[in-house]
Amino acid sequence: MSETLSSVERGVEPLIARLRSGDVRALARAVSLVENDAASAADILSGCFPYSGRALRIGITGAPGAGKSTIVDKLARQYRGAGVTVGVIAIDPTSPFTGGAILGDRIRMQENLGDPGFYVRSMATRGSLGGLARTTADVASIVEASGKDVILIETVGVGQDEIDIVRLSDITIVVLVPGMGDDVQSLKAGIMEIADIFVVNKSDREGADRVEKEVRAMQSLATSHGDWVPPVVKTVASSGEGIDRLNEAIAQMKQWLETDSRMEARRRNYWRERITEMMRQALMREVRRHGLSDEELDAHAVRVAGKLEDPYRLVPELVARVVKS
Amino acid sequence: MSETLSSVERGVEPLIARLRSGDVRALARAVSLVENDAASAADILSGCFPYSGRALRIGITGAPGAGKSTIVDKLARQYRGAGVTVGVIAIDPTSPFTGGAILGDRIRMQENLGDPGFYVRSMATRGSLGGLARTTADVASIVEASGKDVILIETVGVGQDEIDIVRLSDITIVVLVPGMGDDVQSLKAGIMEIADIFVVNKSDREGADRVEKEVRAMQSLATSHGDWVPPVVKTVASSGEGIDRLNEAIAQMKQWLETDSRMEARRRNYWRERITEMMRQALMREVRRHGLSDEELDAHAVRVAGKLEDPYRLVPELVARVVKS
Repeated sequence: MSETLSSVERGVEPLIARLRSGDVRALARAVSLVENDAASAADILSGCFPYSGRALRIGITGAPGAGKSTIVDKLARQYRGAGVTVGVIAIDPTSPFTGGAILGDRIRMQENLGDPGFYVRSMATRGSLGGLARTTADVASIVEASGKDVILIETVGVGQDEIDIVRLSDITIVVLVPGMGDDVQSLKAGIMEIADIFVVNKSDREGADRVEKEVRAMQSLATSHGDWVPPVVKTVASSGEGIDRLNEAIAQMKQWLETDSRMEARRRNYWRERITEMMRQALMREVRRHGLSDEELDAHAVRVAGKLEDPYRLVPELVARVVKS
Repeated sequence: MSETLSSVERGVEPLIARLRSGDVRALARAVSLVENDAASAADILSGCFPYSGRALRIGITGAPGAGKSTIVDKLARQYRGAGVTVGVIAIDPTSPFTGGAILGDRIRMQENLGDPGFYVRSMATRGSLGGLARTTADVASIVEASGKDVILIETVGVGQDEIDIVRLSDITIVVLVPGMGDDVQSLKAGIMEIADIFVVNKSDREGADRVEKEVRAMQSLATSHGDWVPPVVKTVASSGEGIDRLNEAIAQMKQWLETDSRMEARRRNYWRERITEMMRQALMREVRRHGLSDEELDAHAVRVAGKLEDPYRLVPELVARVVKS
């Protein structure tokens, strides 16, 4: 078994060597193979693993239209200006309703193409629950292995998917805008709690102070982050205003994380969740392998829907087939 | 094995008999036991299963503040007026930020208390991915077994969680309001596709026609629902205006579902997903039972975070421990 794996591993070695040496096409190819869950995916990930974990991962989330792409764009430029290499992973919804506008943003960002210290990858949301967070985590590892210093992970929206994705990050930025009405209040439960840094973008608009005040009021209610109080940074990303302050807030948070092993603790938590999720996926693959075919699953669904079979008895039986007694 | 189960089953039989006879306290107790994943949960669900699946399940989702609770309230009253029994399952976020307002809504709804044909249950969102959808499905089955004709499942927000929850429904209503700005555009990818009926609530406000037009424009882009074109119903739920038209749209959709076995097809799909999800949960429980303790998982997380262990090799090994070869 391990012999077979090694020989497959030798198969992906040249690809990994090339992506590590800065070959953008090799990087893109490795990402595609993993995204498409190719046979070599596990070996690519395994081969990249020793070289991952060195980058600072920054997750950026917030309501659609809050200007996240522009912030990411400006942050990336500032990092590049300082000689810091940057990978951007942008999670785009596949919805036909919003696809167009977001694609436009991505094309704008591609202006940075040709810069070997910069890499952008857009990923489409998948149907399957949890699937996107997994793929994003894997893609982030590969981009890290290519030697990027900072990985910016940008999501659209503020649902559970986004929370799962930004959990991959060392630092989470939540972007708000004035004029959201009661939307600070209405931000999905959970998103406020995960913010390490708040950005009030488009802060030249009326109401920016009110948004800041609301965040502060909520912070006083919320459970503490330890001794880190998430700062509120006002920006006008389109003109670049405040991006330097955001950069500074990130640097301060990074320093805080590097004190008292906080970064290690975050990453341990991260891996605890990731290993669990990876096992969940692997187990379901085993179930398939042990003969619960799509056809059989369909047949059970028909019988359960018709009240001919009790799912609360069926599932333990199906599990007993797969699992050692 | 089956003997043991039957004797446990006899243990929950009186409870099920009581909830089936209309005893609200027995119903509430059964729901609590299942919500808390008590030892008797599987037997309660198994005992309720034969009596579930007869109700019409209606899911109601949409942006926070769109007036979903009021719509649910008015719909429930109209059903009760027509002699139709109603169960309401309201998914409330646990966030300290929004908890208060929503609790107020629920208290208002409790005015219907004392009516044996009406039952409301609020459920808090849980941290674990997919966990809430599972619990909601189980709770819906129990409420159905108590003999309710219609189950209204109301969520807050429009993320993946909500999509998973409304997938439990036979009919999904998405509530929009005028003055959301670009929010029809920004509604989470996926939510527009699952709508069977759109409601434009607060339609006495300026912009209701524009929201309707936007929905229509999106529908022309979207993949088809077969020959069902989701209607757009304008309401002013606070005054009750339009609720009769919403009721009519629901009745039409129900009729459509009952034609050409469409309802059966939806429920087969539902059970295919539910069985898969139930297996996923059961398998993870087996993993725990086979000795992957929290301590061991922590130890692996520490080693992986420290690059001392390759998770892409570890997970197959852990899975091999549990699964028959």
